[in-house]
Amino acid sequence: MKVAIQGELGSFSHEAAMQMAPGAEIVPCPFSVDVFDQVAAGAIAVIPIENSLAGSVAEHFDLLFAREVRIDAEFLLRIRHNLIGIRGSNLKMVRRAYSHPVALAQCRHFFASHPGILPQPAYDTAGSVKQIIEAGDPSSAAIASAEAAAFYGAEILAAGIEDNAANFTRFLRIRAGSGRTAGGVPPDKLSVAFSVENRPGTLVSALEVFRDRGANLSKIESRPVHGQPWDYLFYADCRLSSPEDADSIVAGLSGQCLAVKELGLYRAAVSR
Amino acid sequence: MKVAIQGELGSFSHEAAMQMAPGAEIVPCPFSVDVFDQVAAGAIAVIPIENSLAGSVAEHFDLLFAREVRIDAEFLLRIRHNLIGIRGSNLKMVRRAYSHPVALAQCRHFFASHPGILPQPAYDTAGSVKQIIEAGDPSSAAIASAEAAAFYGAEILAAGIEDNAANFTRFLRIRAGSGRTAGGVPPDKLSVAFSVENRPGTLVSALEVFRDRGANLSKIESRPVHGQPWDYLFYADCRLSSPEDADSIVAGLSGQCLAVKELGLYRAAVSR
Repeated sequence: MKVAIQGELGSFSHEAAMQMAPGAEIVPCPFSVDVFDQVAAGAIAVIPIENSLAGSVAEHFDLLFAREVRIDAEFLLRIRHNLIGIRGSNLKMVRRAYSHPVALAQCRHFFASHPGILPQPAYDTAGSVKQIIEAGDPSSAAIASAEAAAFYGAEILAAGIEDNAANFTRFLRIRAGSGRTAGGVPPDKLSVAFSVENRPGTLVSALEVFRDRGANLSKIESRPVHGQPWDYLFYADCRLSSPEDADSIVAGLSGQCLAVKELGLYRAAVSR
Repeated sequence: MKVAIQGELGSFSHEAAMQMAPGAEIVPCPFSVDVFDQVAAGAIAVIPIENSLAGSVAEHFDLLFAREVRIDAEFLLRIRHNLIGIRGSNLKMVRRAYSHPVALAQCRHFFASHPGILPQPAYDTAGSVKQIIEAGDPSSAAIASAEAAAFYGAEILAAGIEDNAANFTRFLRIRAGSGRTAGGVPPDKLSVAFSVENRPGTLVSALEVFRDRGANLSKIESRPVHGQPWDYLFYADCRLSSPEDADSIVAGLSGQCLAVKELGLYRAAVSR
């Protein structure tokens, strides 16, 4: 079994993939579209969909809508940031810390209390660890996960340096096809995409479909439609009272909306 | 007058700031929080809030909610990507193209038809131009705006290389204070943030407030509440039939919601 991820080995996606597809062969892909191409070719994939601090990964919503795939599981990964250096470095030697701008922004208190360390934006958390190991300079550090430090043989110089401990990323496991995965624990969460006519009240009517079935919306997001700026598609997640409500909700939306796609029926993850 | 932007000079934010605050002194800031600190100190700011392809800038929604600021204008900037090299380089010499991952992903057709050029993720579009100019290597190019090329004295080697011409970023102009800006063209757009109890139907009741006043929702987004993962705050934009409806909508939401904040009442931008 192959599991495709976007980004470098040692990334948070790599960690989530090991949790959601234990024992599978990890296939790192440079772009998200490559991940979905791997799924079309028979792999499964594990993709981040939203972070509790940084928000949604818009491109992944769009690909879930555009491609013949379905969500069959979700997972919440606690995000812990660490200052990571080469072997032989220590906190006092570090002058620069490289990481993704979102990770740097999540460690502002650390930078405020260590004014001798300059934040340096880079394109990836795990990629920054790879970079500082290649450069071999003890004054350059990266901010990334403990797994990235272990993966690249680097050292954690300061652990858990994120400002806010309530930092989670929600990951989805996806596979090819539009059917549902049978068996296992009964599903209690539905993800669906739909579009409505652009006039007052149409979204309310669509959301009444969820309310009338006692389904609690846990997320809603509008996304502009590609090629038609400011026409909107809506993504919604809801918790179901019973798995049978899924069909009724999809049918109800189909009667109200211009387009409806069931993205997945799965078991909601429990925050740990 | 000072106008704060996040990121480098020559960026799309710089371009939007010159359009929305002509003649103002540009203050580039490393982080978005720094931009809002500048606003607290008396500057205005121009910030991207969503891109038609890449989605929302979640951090900016959160800062609009957290800080004592208001939106007083919006602007739609057409995003055009260009392959940019040092003087003396040309398309045939280029082996690597650096840019923000979102910009690289928006130029996939270009990379597919130029297999000799490798996409290289970097943290910023304009910053990549700065970087290739400093490196002075004709085989390294960047993908960024024409303004970034002009700003850093670089050359456009291939213009308009984005896949999708319908690529816009929506920018907001913000200033300190919670009042409304009087005078000028009558406002027709309201941005508001609100939170509701986490049970079925509460969001529908809140959205009925908009529908009952004939206001057309142009965007809605749920954002997790910081420190309380998976409690949600909603952001909504709507077009008003009349400016007077703004007060009625805010009052109606206040009667339904746990918290309500008017983020701004302003004139909707026209796509050009």
